[in-house]
Amino acid sequence: MSSIPVRPETPVTAAERSDAARNRERLLLAARELIEQGGAGALTMDRLAEHAGVGKGTVFRRFGSRAGLMLTLLNDSEAAFQARFLFGPPPMGPGAEPLERLIAFGTERIAYLVEFGDLVLAAGHASRGRFEVPAVALWNQHVEMLLREAGVDSPEPWLMAGSLTATLDPERLLHLIRDHGVTRDRLGVSWRDLVTRVVTGA
Amino acid sequence: MSSIPVRPETPVTAAERSDAARNRERLLLAARELIEQGGAGALTMDRLAEHAGVGKGTVFRRFGSRAGLMLTLLNDSEAAFQARFLFGPPPMGPGAEPLERLIAFGTERIAYLVEFGDLVLAAGHASRGRFEVPAVALWNQHVEMLLREAGVDSPEPWLMAGSLTATLDPERLLHLIRDHGVTRDRLGVSWRDLVTRVVTGA
Repeated sequence: MSSIPVRPETPVTAAERSDAARNRERLLLAARELIEQGGAGALTMDRLAEHAGVGKGTVFRRFGSRAGLMLTLLNDSEAAFQARFLFGPPPMGPGAEPLERLIAFGTERIAYLVEFGDLVLAAGHASRGRFEVPAVALWNQHVEMLLREAGVDSPEPWLMAGSLTATLDPERLLHLIRDHGVTRDRLGVSWRDLVTRVVTGA
Repeated sequence: MSSIPVRPETPVTAAERSDAARNRERLLLAARELIEQGGAGALTMDRLAEHAGVGKGTVFRRFGSRAGLMLTLLNDSEAAFQARFLFGPPPMGPGAEPLERLIAFGTERIAYLVEFGDLVLAAGHASRGRFEVPAVALWNQHVEMLLREAGVDSPEPWLMAGSLTATLDPERLLHLIRDHGVTRDRLGVSWRDLVTRVVTGA
């Protein structure tokens, strides 16, 4: 455990930087475990410090506040998700057929929401300005590219991609899962059916 | 102009009832004209009284408040929309092919949002609890029925219907129209493309 706050003005050695990175990973892992056990509500700065076996001061120096911690978790998981569909192995990443990649994209997005849904809602990405989040624009672009590669000759490719990603709206999916007891598998089957029809029909 | 407030405890003659109904229609028509000219923001109780040529007291007795007026307008227009897809003439109502009815449903829904979008947003149907609005459940049921009639053999018919109606989410469509300048025609073309692919593909 390092007690050195990592700030731009603080000269740090390579060993300290590597220590800091390890600490950060350890804290984020512990945070994810807490969320898995009891939802985003269970994640407090106190519990995180206790669960990760570090001092409370370390947690605050690292993330600033509970909101900062939430945002870090979400940015990290979103970045990991993006890396998977942009550069990861098939079927989500390059190398698989475009329809397979589309199916994998939605299926993995549903899995992501099951895991991080509480965070997504807590961060408010789901309500105000939910259409202008940069991540949403990137998914749209990605889906549009895959539709083109799959030979979908749509009169409105950008709008079609937007319609498909709209069906993955976090609030909608979490509502179906939580209030209607729809399983992640059923959502995946329905996404596969939808994009398969869009690619093969017309 | 009748100044008799229509309340259950007030005995009214048939002529008075008919007067009241005409007055109500006149006020709602005037309210729609004001919204058409300047959006929901332009609709105040004062302006409505002036535009309809009645006393301000009449407007307040009829609708209680500006919020009451908004809700009345929305309920009336939603009821009219529902009547059209349930019992109205083809292509939206019974008698047309199911795919034609699906296309007409979305096209008319887009037109509805262009006309009443301000009201829909003002009434808050678009944010909290937007998935549990009875109207949304009815559209879902309607789209599911048309998909079945069109011979769509979906593993998850209810979820598929929900995905399609999700693409007509008011906030999303109004965002596309207002922030991206997407025309109602382009949205209609994209909806037609989407449902045609869903019905013919697989």
